[in-house]
Amino acid sequence: MPSYTAPTRDIQFVLHDVLDIAAAKISGHADLDRDFTAAILEEAGKVASEVLAPLNAVGDTMGCRLENGVVHTPTGFDRAFAAMRDGGWNGLDIPEEFGGQGLPYVLGTAVGEIFVSANMAFNMYQGLTHGAVSAILAHGTEEQKATYVPKMTSLEWTGTMNLTEPHAGTDLGMLRTKAEPRNDGSYAITGQKIFISAGDHDLAENIIHLVLARAPGGGEGTRGISLFIVPKFLVNTDGSLGARNAVSVGKIEEKMGIHGNATCVMDYDGATGFLTGELHKGMRAMFTMMNEARLGVGLQGYAQAEAAYQNAVIYARDRLQGRDVTGPKNPDGPADPIIVHPDIRRSLMDQKSFVEGARAFTLWGAHLIDRSHRADDAAAEGLVSLLTPVIKGFLTDKGFDATIAAQQVYGGHGYIEEWGMSQFARDARIAMIYEGANGIQALDLVGRKLAQDGGKHVLAFFEMVKTFLKEHDGDAALKADFLDPLKAASKDLQAAAMYFMQKGMKNPNNALAGSTDFLHMFGHVCLGLMWARMAIAAQKALDADTTDPEFLKTKLATGRYYMARQLPATALHLKRIQSGADTVMALDAAAF
Amino acid sequence: MPSYTAPTRDIQFVLHDVLDIAAAKISGHADLDRDFTAAILEEAGKVASEVLAPLNAVGDTMGCRLENGVVHTPTGFDRAFAAMRDGGWNGLDIPEEFGGQGLPYVLGTAVGEIFVSANMAFNMYQGLTHGAVSAILAHGTEEQKATYVPKMTSLEWTGTMNLTEPHAGTDLGMLRTKAEPRNDGSYAITGQKIFISAGDHDLAENIIHLVLARAPGGGEGTRGISLFIVPKFLVNTDGSLGARNAVSVGKIEEKMGIHGNATCVMDYDGATGFLTGELHKGMRAMFTMMNEARLGVGLQGYAQAEAAYQNAVIYARDRLQGRDVTGPKNPDGPADPIIVHPDIRRSLMDQKSFVEGARAFTLWGAHLIDRSHRADDAAAEGLVSLLTPVIKGFLTDKGFDATIAAQQVYGGHGYIEEWGMSQFARDARIAMIYEGANGIQALDLVGRKLAQDGGKHVLAFFEMVKTFLKEHDGDAALKADFLDPLKAASKDLQAAAMYFMQKGMKNPNNALAGSTDFLHMFGHVCLGLMWARMAIAAQKALDADTTDPEFLKTKLATGRYYMARQLPATALHLKRIQSGADTVMALDAAAF
Repeated sequence: MPSYTAPTRDIQFVLHDVLDIAAAKISGHADLDRDFTAAILEEAGKVASEVLAPLNAVGDTMGCRLENGVVHTPTGFDRAFAAMRDGGWNGLDIPEEFGGQGLPYVLGTAVGEIFVSANMAFNMYQGLTHGAVSAILAHGTEEQKATYVPKMTSLEWTGTMNLTEPHAGTDLGMLRTKAEPRNDGSYAITGQKIFISAGDHDLAENIIHLVLARAPGGGEGTRGISLFIVPKFLVNTDGSLGARNAVSVGKIEEKMGIHGNATCVMDYDGATGFLTGELHKGMRAMFTMMNEARLGVGLQGYAQAEAAYQNAVIYARDRLQGRDVTGPKNPDGPADPIIVHPDIRRSLMDQKSFVEGARAFTLWGAHLIDRSHRADDAAAEGLVSLLTPVIKGFLTDKGFDATIAAQQVYGGHGYIEEWGMSQFARDARIAMIYEGANGIQALDLVGRKLAQDGGKHVLAFFEMVKTFLKEHDGDAALKADFLDPLKAASKDLQAAAMYFMQKGMKNPNNALAGSTDFLHMFGHVCLGLMWARMAIAAQKALDADTTDPEFLKTKLATGRYYMARQLPATALHLKRIQSGADTVMALDAAAF
Repeated sequence: MPSYTAPTRDIQFVLHDVLDIAAAKISGHADLDRDFTAAILEEAGKVASEVLAPLNAVGDTMGCRLENGVVHTPTGFDRAFAAMRDGGWNGLDIPEEFGGQGLPYVLGTAVGEIFVSANMAFNMYQGLTHGAVSAILAHGTEEQKATYVPKMTSLEWTGTMNLTEPHAGTDLGMLRTKAEPRNDGSYAITGQKIFISAGDHDLAENIIHLVLARAPGGGEGTRGISLFIVPKFLVNTDGSLGARNAVSVGKIEEKMGIHGNATCVMDYDGATGFLTGELHKGMRAMFTMMNEARLGVGLQGYAQAEAAYQNAVIYARDRLQGRDVTGPKNPDGPADPIIVHPDIRRSLMDQKSFVEGARAFTLWGAHLIDRSHRADDAAAEGLVSLLTPVIKGFLTDKGFDATIAAQQVYGGHGYIEEWGMSQFARDARIAMIYEGANGIQALDLVGRKLAQDGGKHVLAFFEMVKTFLKEHDGDAALKADFLDPLKAASKDLQAAAMYFMQKGMKNPNNALAGSTDFLHMFGHVCLGLMWARMAIAAQKALDADTTDPEFLKTKLATGRYYMARQLPATALHLKRIQSGADTVMALDAAAF
C-alpha cells in the first residue's frame, strides 16, 4: 500500500524563502513566521499520514453505497471526518467571527495540498464545504451567514455545489431547474442536478446545497439564473434541525476514480430554497467563487502527482533489476536498484520538477488571492484571475501525466490495483474534467482573460517577468541555467499572444484553435518563473551559510532540469499556434 | 454503451494504395486483390461489431473469477470464442499444413486491429495463442508442431507466455523457476510465474504454457534459461488429453483494466515440461518472437485509440453545448453540437491523425515481417527489428494519450463508467507496460538497435527517407505541406543519432538519458513518412478520377494536420536530448 509523508520542508521553502509571506503587507501576515507555519504543517502532515492516507485505498475499494435513500461512506471515513472536525482544519482561513481562525488563504492552501495528497476523495467532503462557505460569506444575507457558516466551518454540516444538469454542463444557460417563489419569501426548487460531489453522505448531520436554478422573470440563457441555499434539513430559528427537505439522491455514479466520494444525481422536488445573492445574478455569484475553486482543483492535480511521485521514488530505490551501465552500484546484490537507470531518472526528474514548480505556482496564486481579498490589491486580483485557468488546466493535465509516469516506474506492478499506483492516476483524472473541463479553461484564458480590461493583466504579467529578469541581470551564476531559458520562453508566449491579436481579429478560430497550446505554454512560463525565483531563493540561502545545504543544492539541480528539459516546450506550442486554424478546421463534421 | 465500426475503407487504403501488397514479390501476395481483402475485412468487422464489441463492457464489469482452482471468464465470452473458432480467424496467417490459411501476416494484423478495437481483453486469449504457435513453429520439434499447433490454430487449445517472476521482470536473468531433467527426456518445472495473461480460463479444453525456466548446467543470468512447453493437460500419443499437469492458478490479479482477461499467478509444482528449442538458449528463442509480439502490442495502443476516437466523434456530433463563435451552426436547436468548437476539433484531429498514421506504420511493419519471413529479405528484417521498439513504445504511449483525449471530449460523462470511455483508457494503459515497458523499448532502440550490425539499419532508414524525398522532389503540391516538414523532422532525428554517437561514447548516460525522447522522435518521423506516403497515394488516386474523392481529400487534410501540428515535436525532443545527461543524473538517489 502506498505511503505518504507531507513535504513540509518544501512547502516552508516556498512560503518563506520564495514568497516571504510574513513580510507581505497584509493584516495578520506578520505573525506567520517559520515556526508558526511549521507547527501547523507538521500537525497537518501527521493527520494526513496517520489518519487520511491509510483510508485512501479503503475508499477506492469500498466506494460509497446508496441504501434506502441514504449514502454510506467507506468504513473509517466517519472517524477521519471527526478528526478533521476536532482539529478545526476547515476553519483555518475562515474569519474568526464565524468560528474560524482567520489565517491566510495561502496557509489553508498549503494544508489543503497535504490533505489532498493523502486522500483526495475524502478531502472533497471538506473542500466543497469550504467552497460553499465562501459563497455564502460573499453573497449571503447576515442571517444566512449566521445560520449556516459557523456549523459549516466546524464541519457539523457540509456543503455542495449544484450546477450541472444532464443537458447543461459547460453551457449552464441551458439549465432547467425551476425556482418558484412562495409567499413566505422562499422558493420551491424543482429539477435534477448531476455530478454532485459529496451530494449525500453519513458524515454530518446536515448538508447545505447551493443550487443554480431559474426563477421567473429572468429571461433565457445565463441571465435568468439565480443561486439558492437548499438545506437537506431545514433549520429552525433556534438553529436546531427541522423538517427533511424535498431533496433526494437519485443514484450514485460509478466512476473511474474518487470512489470514496459520493458523486450523486440529486432530485429536487419542490424543495425549499432560499435566494442568496441577487435575483437573476446567480452566475455572477458563482464566478466570484471560481478563482478559489479552480485553484483548489489545480492543486488536486499536483497533489496527486506528489503522492504518486513519493511512492515511485520508494519503489525505484527498492526494486532491483538490471545493472547501472556505468558500473554496478549494488555489487553485492543480485542487481542494482532501478533508480540508477537514466530513463527512470528522467521520469522521476520530470515528476519532481513539475510538482515542486506547481506547488510554488499554486501557493503564489493563493498569496495573490490573499492580496486581493485581504489587502484590496486590484493588480493581484487581475493577475490571479488571468492565472486561474492556467493553474487549473496546466496543473491537472500535467499532474495526471505525472501520475501515469509514476505508475510506469512500477512496471507490471503499477497496473495491479493492490499496489495503489492506479488509484492516483484514476483519481487525478477527474481534475482535468470538473470545475470546467480543461478545454474550457483554455477558452476562458484565450477568449476572455487575455483581453480582459484591455489586456492589462497579461501585459502586467509580461512586464513582471521583464522586471524580474532585469533585476537579476547581473546574476552570472544563474544566467545560463535559469534566466536565459525563462527569457526565451516568455518571448515565445508573447509571440503567441501577438499572433492571437493579429490573426484572431480576422478569424477567432485562429486564436481558439491554439487555446490549449497557449494554456500549456503559459503554464510552462509560470513554472519557469517559479523555478527561477526558487533558484534565486535557494542560492541566497546557500550564500547565507544555511544549515541545510543539501536541500538547497537539490532545489537548484531540480530547477536546472526543468529549465533544460521542460521549459523548451514553449517553442513547440508556439509553432502549433502559428500554424493557425486552417488544418484544425479543415474537415466537415461528417468527415471525421 | 460505446459502439464500434471497423474502418475497412481506411485499412484497404493502406494495404493497397500505400503498401500495394498485391504487387509485392512475396509468394501468394499476387492473389491479395482489393476484393479479396475487402471480403475478409468486412467479415471481421461484422464479427467485431456484432459479437465482440457488445461484450467489451461486460468483460470490464464482470471480470474473471477463480473458483475451486478454475477460472471463469465473463458471461458470453464462451459464445464469442466459439465464433472466433468457427470463423477460423486464428489461423489466417498460419501455414496451411497446420490447419491455417497461410495468408500474409499483414492481413492477419489488419484483422487483428479490428478485433482488438472491439474487445481488447477478449482478443488476448487468441492473441497469446497465436504468439505461442509462432514460438512452437519456430523452435519446436516436428513432433511438437504436429502435437500442439493444429489444435492451437483451431483454438481448441490456447497458449500462454510465462516469463515474469515476482523478482524478475525486465531482468529475466534473475529468474528462478527450475527445470529438472527426468529420465524420460521431460523436465520437472517448479516455480512461480506472475502476470500471465490468459493464464487459465474456461474457453478451451487445454492450455499450452510456454515457460522460461532454468535447467542445470546453464550458468547464471540469461544464459542459463531454456524454453519449455508445459500443457495444462498432458497430451497422449493419439492426441487425446491425458493427466492434469501440476500447474495451478495461485490467484487472479485485480487490475486497472483488461478485466475480461485473466491475469494469473501460475504455480508450477514439478509440472511436466518439454524442452523446445535449444537447451540454455531460451532467451534467444523468445527474442525471435519479439518483433511480432511487440508489434501486436503497439497495435493495441492505436486500436484502443481508434475505438475511443469513433465514440468521441459520435458524442461530439450529438452533444449540444455552446455556440460556434463564428455563428450558430444549429440555429434551430438550443445549442450547437460541440464538434463546432475549435478545441474539440483540435483534439479530434490529434486523435484521427495519430490513429491513421499509426495504422499505416503498423501495417508497414507487418509487411516488412512478411518480406523478412516469406521472402528472406534481410534488409526488411533489419529494418523491422529497428522499428519494432518504436512501434511498440510510441504507439502505446500516444495511443493511451489519445484514449484520454477521447474521454475528455465527453466532459463529466467521460469519467462515468457507464459511458465506456474510461475503459478504453484503462485497457490501453497496460500496453505501455507489458511486453517490455516503454522505457525498455527506448533502451532497446538506443542501446541496442541503433548500433546493430554497425548501425547499418538506421543508416538504411535515413537513406530510405532521403531517397523518398528525392523521388518526390518535383511534387510542388505536396512540398510545403508534407515533404519539407518530413525533411526537417528527419534532420532532427539524424542530429539526435549523431549526438548519441559523439557524446554517448564518452558517457553512455548521454544517450540513455535521451532514449525515450529519441523513441518518440523516431515515432514522429515514421508517422510523418507514413503521412507523406499516404498523401502521395491519395493525390495519385484523386488524379486518377476516383469514385470516392471525399475520402481522399479528408486523408490529405488529416495528413496536413499531422505535419503542421504533431511532427514539429521532433525539435523539442532533439533539444532535450542535446541537453545531455547532466541535469538528469545530477541528484544522489537519496536526494529524490
